[in-house]
Amino acid sequence: MIVVVCLNPALDVTHQLDAVGWGGVNRPRAVHARPGGKGLNVARTLHALGADVLVLGMAGGITGAGVEAELRELGVPAAFTPVSGETRRTFSVVDDSRVTAFHEPGPEVGAAEFAEFRAGYQKALAGAEAVVLSGSLPPGLPNGTYATLIQAAGVPVVLDTHGEALRRGAAAAPAIVKPNRAEIEALTGRSLTTPEELTVGAGELGGAGAAVVVTLGPEGLLAATGDGCWRARMPAAVAGNATGAGDAVTAALAHGIVVGRPWQERLRHAAALGAATAAAPVAGEFRQQDYRDALRAVAVEEVC
Amino acid sequence: MIVVVCLNPALDVTHQLDAVGWGGVNRPRAVHARPGGKGLNVARTLHALGADVLVLGMAGGITGAGVEAELRELGVPAAFTPVSGETRRTFSVVDDSRVTAFHEPGPEVGAAEFAEFRAGYQKALAGAEAVVLSGSLPPGLPNGTYATLIQAAGVPVVLDTHGEALRRGAAAAPAIVKPNRAEIEALTGRSLTTPEELTVGAGELGGAGAAVVVTLGPEGLLAATGDGCWRARMPAAVAGNATGAGDAVTAALAHGIVVGRPWQERLRHAAALGAATAAAPVAGEFRQQDYRDALRAVAVEEVC
Repeated sequence: MIVVVCLNPALDVTHQLDAVGWGGVNRPRAVHARPGGKGLNVARTLHALGADVLVLGMAGGITGAGVEAELRELGVPAAFTPVSGETRRTFSVVDDSRVTAFHEPGPEVGAAEFAEFRAGYQKALAGAEAVVLSGSLPPGLPNGTYATLIQAAGVPVVLDTHGEALRRGAAAAPAIVKPNRAEIEALTGRSLTTPEELTVGAGELGGAGAAVVVTLGPEGLLAATGDGCWRARMPAAVAGNATGAGDAVTAALAHGIVVGRPWQERLRHAAALGAATAAAPVAGEFRQQDYRDALRAVAVEEVC
Repeated sequence: MIVVVCLNPALDVTHQLDAVGWGGVNRPRAVHARPGGKGLNVARTLHALGADVLVLGMAGGITGAGVEAELRELGVPAAFTPVSGETRRTFSVVDDSRVTAFHEPGPEVGAAEFAEFRAGYQKALAGAEAVVLSGSLPPGLPNGTYATLIQAAGVPVVLDTHGEALRRGAAAAPAIVKPNRAEIEALTGRSLTTPEELTVGAGELGGAGAAVVVTLGPEGLLAATGDGCWRARMPAAVAGNATGAGDAVTAALAHGIVVGRPWQERLRHAAALGAATAAAPVAGEFRQQDYRDALRAVAVEEVC
């Protein structure tokens, strides 16, 4: 079983319009509400891959109940620790030319609430083969939260977050950290343009022993691991839903650990699933045919 | 008791930002979620006036549960018939210069669901002194729905809706219909600019016996009744929240019926409460001091 931790889930509401009348009243032609937050995208992707997955998170209020109801409907097993605050919404307005998003802040989480989550996490670890920690921390939780969860895991952990939570998490030696270029640049404090610069930056972030997989959008993936460095590329750049693509890469890396794929194959699958998900309109979803096609198209080369 | 019917309630979500980055990710500095839809604004205003009020409506899904929870928190008594569809959200983005709104469609209501609502309505009428029918009809209900509810009421009804539902409702002789200028122009099929033109238009709409009160925004109110015609004006135009102001006028008209105010006083209160509500940032709310000040400032003159 893969335990996916989503401490700051969201209800993602999307309105599709032909054109937005700013300053007026708009009537969307389609409305979608889906469980969101990076962790839930990862969990839905793993579920679609046929992996045995359990979501652990914290949820509150009517919006939290909405997230739980939507996950149930999708058949993704989940256990949320109740919090007194209200789970956040994200709201995206999609018109012909662009996406405008509005992200509410998450609820403030109290120490007693997190202690209750920790108890559930500890219990779930008994049946876990891998753990995914993904997304932002809600207000109230310290930057060292993911580091603590990594130290307690006892199984390989894949970490996808940003800022201090990422720096401190990486120092706790998870199996893999998965920053994007902006996130690793923010932590190293310098621009990382060439594969060489990226490999050096990844080596710094993974200094405590974590493999580092950097997502480079349409340019693919770069991995710096204890066993070597690889670059995975698609023959043609795939534009599309970047958030969903990053979360698909995280899911594929965790899946690759559990099914025992060697690094080169793990990266091939991660790049292919990322590309297939980028091509889908909704984060956490992909067409199986796109995934199969992309698997054949990905090239993985050793770069160090 | 005043029964307020809200067949198509909403959860009104408002995001406040300093400036919106269209095409990017925005993080609102304040988020508000409130029960919405015109009927619920009317009910909240009546509740703030100290009136004994009961909301009857139809609600479904997580958003419906959210509306019910928020109303409970506000202390407004309500009974919603459950529907299988999902209650709608409205989403408003407020920045320094303007408000951009996104209104989801309401849930499709089935005949059996409406029959259940009707049974509850019939029961509530036993204790009702007046009924307010306010807002749009959800998809699935015929345009004659309000007319049917008016014929069944047996007590004075105030109707605030638009289009065919308004035309057919007015023909069922409610005590008062409350269109705005655009709504009555749409029904008469001509532009109504002068008080004389408006009085004629109102007379046509009220031909079956309804008094007609037209809200004219900052220009106040015009009433054409069986007892005479009046115009109510504020000495200074009040800009602001037009939706909330119209709903406050509806609330004051129903309240005026129940407390036995003669027309002239009823209109003075309606105009004053509309002005006080227009000055408040949120529909359904007003400052008592603004209401008292406005009551002294309103001028009511007979115009026919």
